[in-house]
Amino acid sequence: VIKAVASSLLVDKGNYRHFMAKEINEQPEVVSHTLANYLDMATAQVRFPDLGLDLAQISRVTISACGTAYYAGLVAKYWIERYARVPVDIDVASEMRYREAPLPENGLAVFVSQSGETADTLATLRYCKANKQRIASIVNVRTSTIARESDAALPTLAGPEIGVASTKAFTCQLSVLACLAIAIAKARGAITKEQEIALVTALTEVPRHIAAILRQDEIYLSVAQELAKARDVLYLGRGSSFPIALEGALKLKEISYIHAEGYAAGELKHGPIALIDENVPVIVVAPEDDLFEKTVSNLQEVAARGGQIILISDAAPEKAGCTPAAHIQMPKIDSFIAPLLYAVPIQLIAYHTAVQIGTDVDQPRNLAKSVTVE
Amino acid sequence: VIKAVASSLLVDKGNYRHFMAKEINEQPEVVSHTLANYLDMATAQVRFPDLGLDLAQISRVTISACGTAYYAGLVAKYWIERYARVPVDIDVASEMRYREAPLPENGLAVFVSQSGETADTLATLRYCKANKQRIASIVNVRTSTIARESDAALPTLAGPEIGVASTKAFTCQLSVLACLAIAIAKARGAITKEQEIALVTALTEVPRHIAAILRQDEIYLSVAQELAKARDVLYLGRGSSFPIALEGALKLKEISYIHAEGYAAGELKHGPIALIDENVPVIVVAPEDDLFEKTVSNLQEVAARGGQIILISDAAPEKAGCTPAAHIQMPKIDSFIAPLLYAVPIQLIAYHTAVQIGTDVDQPRNLAKSVTVE
Repeated sequence: VIKAVASSLLVDKGNYRHFMAKEINEQPEVVSHTLANYLDMATAQVRFPDLGLDLAQISRVTISACGTAYYAGLVAKYWIERYARVPVDIDVASEMRYREAPLPENGLAVFVSQSGETADTLATLRYCKANKQRIASIVNVRTSTIARESDAALPTLAGPEIGVASTKAFTCQLSVLACLAIAIAKARGAITKEQEIALVTALTEVPRHIAAILRQDEIYLSVAQELAKARDVLYLGRGSSFPIALEGALKLKEISYIHAEGYAAGELKHGPIALIDENVPVIVVAPEDDLFEKTVSNLQEVAARGGQIILISDAAPEKAGCTPAAHIQMPKIDSFIAPLLYAVPIQLIAYHTAVQIGTDVDQPRNLAKSVTVE
Repeated sequence: VIKAVASSLLVDKGNYRHFMAKEINEQPEVVSHTLANYLDMATAQVRFPDLGLDLAQISRVTISACGTAYYAGLVAKYWIERYARVPVDIDVASEMRYREAPLPENGLAVFVSQSGETADTLATLRYCKANKQRIASIVNVRTSTIARESDAALPTLAGPEIGVASTKAFTCQLSVLACLAIAIAKARGAITKEQEIALVTALTEVPRHIAAILRQDEIYLSVAQELAKARDVLYLGRGSSFPIALEGALKLKEISYIHAEGYAAGELKHGPIALIDENVPVIVVAPEDDLFEKTVSNLQEVAARGGQIILISDAAPEKAGCTPAAHIQMPKIDSFIAPLLYAVPIQLIAYHTAVQIGTDVDQPRNLAKSVTVE
């Protein structure tokens, strides 16, 4: 008899006002546990379970998920394509399951779901299985249907997540996906041993960096006090920060009911910039990587139109080429791990904003934790 | 010497108050001209120019574009995958150009740009060319840089588009992409001769249907009077109607400055439903196709939370399982051509809403017609 984790533990809020706050603060620990499951910390190498297919032979990775888990998958597209040089097709499961996608030989299909019961994701899994894809799932509930129907279930070790807005499950999903990207890259010889060690080492530093980010509580509170007055918020990012911008917008939307929307920063000029005036805060996820200069030029366009900029970056604020209304200072890191770290400020901003507004943070209106209907 | 179309014509508004209205109303004519360039109307077969590669051998189609043109490409992903059974990778050009995407042998890369000068799209074209993709571009300006740098330039015959918010260029881009999908499907033997005739025949009926849709002016006006009071609007669709929902939201955002957002209807429960109350109109793009029942169940969730539904559908309103606040009756058609027709009501809704609000329809704030910087 296998007991589900959630039912075998007495889950309470501890010293926190909400489950969401508790779960955000658990991230250093649960990300560490999850990484330890897929990495050999002693040698700084990936130690990935056998997926039942030769990773060197994968022709394409197809990722399907819903909501926050979809954004984790979108980060993985950047990682797998860049480091492993394998094309990745990603779609929300409710679209993927009906669009009759042609699937390749030697394809790996990856499903991401906290509950492991998401109806659309499960239906897509079955479609991919019928079309001879190898099935791997990243789930937080090992006894779930999605885990059981997979060739390989890759657990996140997040522990029970009670808050409807996913936080620690998201960073744990990213942790598994980062290890998967390294594992495929290694198997294909797309990275050297030294690169593998560098990437794994960067990953092992994630829990410590998250802990440091969590200690900056005043800045999130002060940003939240301003955001709580807004009706509309835009989130911008480029590259692997683009999915984090999408996730930031989703998080704020879910629990504060503010209409937040995420955009690829380069798309700003193709429409959404029309929305910007002094009443629309713009949150910019901008690690100082190869794309930083491009993002800065987008920031200047926002500033020129009176938009209030909240900059989340490891760059000094003067490098932004404008005066941000707020600046959340991030640690200097390998850009590979940026999504794992930048996920945390956007969670805290959404949380504190919702608390300011007084909404029901753990049980937002209209939403269910696990969407088991279509 | 080749003269650019725009400069060789004296472009005026005719009897219309705005270029955008004129351009929306030109669609039956310009779509007809564009289709005639790629179809043999007499035999109801596709007559596609040689792209310099064997369409039967294409391993993947990679589509890049920005803004509205990106949504045209997203419709094409559904068409090409479904009818031609070739995988399609699509991305906004500003992301595609930097994410170091691995590109396959025998790949066709397709670029969509009204002006043919979009900076990010051009940069992506050059990346794909350097990575040995065959380059086809769908442009409205034949003398443009993107057209010149392509192996095959596939013109849209939309004529000069002056309104910043693209309308007739979009439906002409869809027209070319629909013909491309049929051409690839035919070359690969993925459709029979009878299916080709049916699809081509459906396409040839598009101009007549658009003309009928344009005549229903009162309904768009009355919807616009309600929308003009809204601060936030959601657009929903599934399958090839999902990109039309995205385009509808973009159109409204661009010219009315209302914060509109498009969503895959199946993702509603994974977050955005938290936004819905009686003040948020929800516009649903829902042809009565295989996905209609699924969309109806999403509608019922919206209705249960007090959301005002504006239903764009060929189905009778009583089939929606709720009472829509407005119902835009569409003609019964082959679902293949639905995106070409459903694009028109969402243009008219955005146009009339902006006119009600009194914004500068043809020159919305912050936006340029052709984005030639990054």
